[in-house]
Amino acid sequence: MTESLTLRQALLSPRSVAIVGQSDDAAKTAGRPLKYLRQAGYRGRIYPVNARRDMVLGEPAWRSLGALPERPDHAYIVTPTDGAVVAVEDCARLGVPVATILADGFTESDPDGATRLARLRGICAETGIRLVGPSSLGVVNLRDRVLLTANAAFAETDIRVGRIFAASHSGSLIGALLSRGAACGIGFAGLVSVGNEVDLSIGEICAATLDDPNVDAYLLFLETMRKADTLRAFALAAAAAGKPILAYKLGRSAEARELAVSHTGALAGEDDMADTFLADCGIGRADTFDGLVEGLPLVARIPLGASGIRVGVVTTTGGGASMAIDRIAASGIAVIGPSATTLARLAKAGIEVAPARLIDLTIAGARYDVVKAALDIMLTAPEFDLVVPVVGSSARFHPQLAVQPIVDCAGAAKPLAAFIVPEAPQALELLRSAGIPAFRTPEACADAIAAAARRRVPKPIVARKRIPSPGSGRLLDELEAGALLDRLGIARAPAAAVAAGVKTAPELSFTYPVAVKVLSPAIAHKTDVGGVVLDVQSGTDLLAAIKAIRGRIAAQRPDVPVERVLVQPMVSGLGEALVGYRVDRDMGPLVMVAAGGVMTEIYRDRSLRLAPVDLAEAHAMIAEVKALKMLAGYRGKPAGDLDALAGAIVALSRLARMDDPAVVEAEINPLIVRRAGEGVLAVDALVKLA
Amino acid sequence: MTESLTLRQALLSPRSVAIVGQSDDAAKTAGRPLKYLRQAGYRGRIYPVNARRDMVLGEPAWRSLGALPERPDHAYIVTPTDGAVVAVEDCARLGVPVATILADGFTESDPDGATRLARLRGICAETGIRLVGPSSLGVVNLRDRVLLTANAAFAETDIRVGRIFAASHSGSLIGALLSRGAACGIGFAGLVSVGNEVDLSIGEICAATLDDPNVDAYLLFLETMRKADTLRAFALAAAAAGKPILAYKLGRSAEARELAVSHTGALAGEDDMADTFLADCGIGRADTFDGLVEGLPLVARIPLGASGIRVGVVTTTGGGASMAIDRIAASGIAVIGPSATTLARLAKAGIEVAPARLIDLTIAGARYDVVKAALDIMLTAPEFDLVVPVVGSSARFHPQLAVQPIVDCAGAAKPLAAFIVPEAPQALELLRSAGIPAFRTPEACADAIAAAARRRVPKPIVARKRIPSPGSGRLLDELEAGALLDRLGIARAPAAAVAAGVKTAPELSFTYPVAVKVLSPAIAHKTDVGGVVLDVQSGTDLLAAIKAIRGRIAAQRPDVPVERVLVQPMVSGLGEALVGYRVDRDMGPLVMVAAGGVMTEIYRDRSLRLAPVDLAEAHAMIAEVKALKMLAGYRGKPAGDLDALAGAIVALSRLARMDDPAVVEAEINPLIVRRAGEGVLAVDALVKLA
Repeated sequence: MTESLTLRQALLSPRSVAIVGQSDDAAKTAGRPLKYLRQAGYRGRIYPVNARRDMVLGEPAWRSLGALPERPDHAYIVTPTDGAVVAVEDCARLGVPVATILADGFTESDPDGATRLARLRGICAETGIRLVGPSSLGVVNLRDRVLLTANAAFAETDIRVGRIFAASHSGSLIGALLSRGAACGIGFAGLVSVGNEVDLSIGEICAATLDDPNVDAYLLFLETMRKADTLRAFALAAAAAGKPILAYKLGRSAEARELAVSHTGALAGEDDMADTFLADCGIGRADTFDGLVEGLPLVARIPLGASGIRVGVVTTTGGGASMAIDRIAASGIAVIGPSATTLARLAKAGIEVAPARLIDLTIAGARYDVVKAALDIMLTAPEFDLVVPVVGSSARFHPQLAVQPIVDCAGAAKPLAAFIVPEAPQALELLRSAGIPAFRTPEACADAIAAAARRRVPKPIVARKRIPSPGSGRLLDELEAGALLDRLGIARAPAAAVAAGVKTAPELSFTYPVAVKVLSPAIAHKTDVGGVVLDVQSGTDLLAAIKAIRGRIAAQRPDVPVERVLVQPMVSGLGEALVGYRVDRDMGPLVMVAAGGVMTEIYRDRSLRLAPVDLAEAHAMIAEVKALKMLAGYRGKPAGDLDALAGAIVALSRLARMDDPAVVEAEINPLIVRRAGEGVLAVDALVKLA
Repeated sequence: MTESLTLRQALLSPRSVAIVGQSDDAAKTAGRPLKYLRQAGYRGRIYPVNARRDMVLGEPAWRSLGALPERPDHAYIVTPTDGAVVAVEDCARLGVPVATILADGFTESDPDGATRLARLRGICAETGIRLVGPSSLGVVNLRDRVLLTANAAFAETDIRVGRIFAASHSGSLIGALLSRGAACGIGFAGLVSVGNEVDLSIGEICAATLDDPNVDAYLLFLETMRKADTLRAFALAAAAAGKPILAYKLGRSAEARELAVSHTGALAGEDDMADTFLADCGIGRADTFDGLVEGLPLVARIPLGASGIRVGVVTTTGGGASMAIDRIAASGIAVIGPSATTLARLAKAGIEVAPARLIDLTIAGARYDVVKAALDIMLTAPEFDLVVPVVGSSARFHPQLAVQPIVDCAGAAKPLAAFIVPEAPQALELLRSAGIPAFRTPEACADAIAAAARRRVPKPIVARKRIPSPGSGRLLDELEAGALLDRLGIARAPAAAVAAGVKTAPELSFTYPVAVKVLSPAIAHKTDVGGVVLDVQSGTDLLAAIKAIRGRIAAQRPDVPVERVLVQPMVSGLGEALVGYRVDRDMGPLVMVAAGGVMTEIYRDRSLRLAPVDLAEAHAMIAEVKALKMLAGYRGKPAGDLDALAGAIVALSRLARMDDPAVVEAEINPLIVRRAGEGVLAVDALVKLA
């Protein structure tokens, strides 16, 4: 990067651009960028580069980058794959600060693709050139008329300029967001198709725009969580700048995750990990396409960390409002009825409503004064954090009755989110141009509310050494793992290592019955190979158990010498939990809690957070695991020591702060949970180093 | 009903109508019906009835029903509540065959409302008049221009007439369906706001239209499952007539179910019961508003019982298609890639695609010939049951490229469902007017596919005596329950009844260890009151166990004399199941299977069907319960006797055919499942008579 030019300037506000491989045929993909730049009235200098033509689309072209009269700020390379690598080399040699690559053919899984990728990475490392793509449909800055794109959606001449910046792994989606956004009154400041992120990631590109006063908020379309660390850094900075982010992330289904792998070459994480990551970054995750497109105005009105938000619904149509309540409540958001005080205020204003979860104005009447008075009361009633007016038939032809009063509440301190039941585009437009978040389906309305409310206040990134990759991947044996738990301050069952060749029963510092387990870092799943005997009642039985274990391991894992066993007292409690820690390649350290056992697997019943967490977060995690209700005094049963469980989660999550040892995976399973006040006890732990 | 007039004629094609309480003020709700009828050009005779005016809206009015020159076929009563009852009496006296009531105020929970309801029911029973409502916004037959409605949505003059009949518990929703439908090219033959169904139910009203050759399909908006028996009868007849039904049912959340109770006075069932009921009736259940409005054309193309449907996706936009695949797959529908044969056919046509789950034409190019050839091949490839083309940016301004080829496949034998990623209303219209189901969001597309595929082939209703209600509600004791299981052919653990006062240990026909349980129909949950002792090892222990049980019951349930205990051998197996049967007041007999235990409750992990079921259905039910995977050879563990489990489900479901005893609830819990081939064994059963 040249000193005088920031990444944002070169990327999004270049003074001059080269289009390498610009075609003379405007109908071809490689013919579009010049056409769109001219059509938009780009005010910088444009250098079409075409090795075989002096003129393209009626203007002079250059034969090579080297022939240009100046070094352009940004080159869009629209040549086929092999030419693209050469063009990047040329750009780097000439000192072009940013190049964007259209071509495909750079996937890791294909040997040629991997070679090309390595070449690009090498060029970046050697020269400092920054790349967008490959597979980028381009970079657009509507405000500066930089339409450096091959996306056909930008053929439109009447593009709405706004204050949202969109970035997408999918190039075609930036076009869809443009037209979908325009249809609901949303304009963009810029849109970038980030492609395969060989160099510049979606996070870095967005971060480069954070100081742009013309950008208020961000829309992201994510296919993978590749380079999620830069996304997190951007999200933190965006939160600090008060600029909200709403994202759609593919991968609810295993099928889509598999497709993302083949499509982008990225690893597919599990969907709840992405969910956790986005929430912990303060990024709203829309679950529906309409929620993504329509949701940002609402997300912008709801503060981060508002998971306990309480929604009040008011309506002129019982059926339509019930649809909204059904969706909002089903997504886990509290929908509440008016307090006695609010009912009294409504009555005083002449509005009689039944004391129900819904403020139904049907009987009072869909009239301006009624709706306005009800809204004014709800917007000042302390029990509601968000007011959702649902408007029926009148919205279509008589917006003055129940839509205008909502518009006239635009200045209220409390946020509103309107759902219009009939087809009523004008009513939606009226609301949106007044700045009121408005939705055409109950699903999009509920989705946007949930996306906003699930965002957590992002935590600062804890500085830690990068884990060397790939390392030895060594597993700790159970004694070493126990020592790590001791250092973390997690209580564990006493344990004695006993030589497997022992002839007489050893003295133990605890009483029988005991559990006997093979002790070897080579065996991660001891039970699977017959490496565990439980409820051993005496010294004689202990010797027999050791012999049995040796026999079974010799048969099943002849490669593993059994030198020692671990002996522990049998411990029991009210129940068990599983507490895990893992450093994801993309998302970094995560901590997890589940009930353990096969039900955790079958129901995917677990809670995750970016590590480290504090006690309050740990308690929130415990509350999210359905099966752990069993330990919270379920149906009159005694309650488990959830404070101690939370303490263990916090303690394990501190691995994220520790550089030594470089733990990439740790799992305490089971962690015995005793009665409240009696603590928890780790019985087994699996720890993997980098 | 007069002999010469069918219900359909009087209800939907009356030759003459009275509007009782017609107002002179067209702005008022009670002023609308006359206005809309005149505006629509209704060709029958209209009799406005107004007790205080000779003229309303510029035409003569009658002072009373009795003053009319003829007996109208249908009266719409738009007076306030009390006047409505009087008007119904007048109608009945005059022999008006059908009356529709607008007024509210007939809820069971309010004493005055209950009195009015009883009065209406009395009038119906005495006179045979049929009522729509109360709380009905009216009855509309667009083809015959019968706009007998007070719904403001019908003020529109340019209403599209079509072949769909809509019926809704919510009156405002018929208006929303009208405008939403029109926006996506759907017209209606008729729309009815059924209100509280004091007499005519939504099922009866729809059934009355089944012989109408102008009605092809049905859209329902359901707030409750009240009078579900008539809905089922209608659904069976509709399936026989080849007329598909798509419904939206409120109540995914407990909050909305509670609202339905207060709003409609109906009982709220559980949502999965409604789900099961609708599926077993062959009614598609849309989960989204757009899915309801846009989905019927697709539902009409998919046969009943197509749960194993395999979807092929083809696209010109990878990101957009991934959204569709993600949603479709997440809703449990199989999305598959092309077979080797299909890939070869594509290659032969010059279309190179990667062998992935998605047929991505991005590289081949978004051109008519490419897309058309790919569609032709997919539509004749045996591996796909449904083809989903996803069209990107080109759909917006160049529909000839990738939309027209879909249109030109309209005649294919295999169904298509298109999703258009950008905002492209013209493309959607082009597709829809060619009869191609088309969707503006991936969510609606997936929702419609899932709604269609989840419909089962409806079973004939098994004739059985109506269970007297309310009956004694007597619980059988465990021995009586055991005898019932014997009659049903469900194996159970041997059991001996022992007098609680016994002084010496009885001879048993089975060996120790045994379980000892209090035997009393007054105690449904024996464990909760200390009424069970397990693992009793000897005669002496048995006497001690009986004593302990007597002591605990005396302390906790002094009202219950402990006369006998039941002694059973301890039985064990690979696992347990819970099999239940229940006669729902509205939906009739249902059978249920779950894994039992607290996890069933926490995760709501159960499968339901209308009873009786056959073996194939019972196996499908078992496959739906996640926790029962544990008994299906999960992770190399031995498999349980799922055939025997299915047999027990079938056997218990046969209670639906038995009139004596009138069992309203039965639950086998636990049903011990042994290894494959070794059968199942009921250990405890709870049976409740009507």
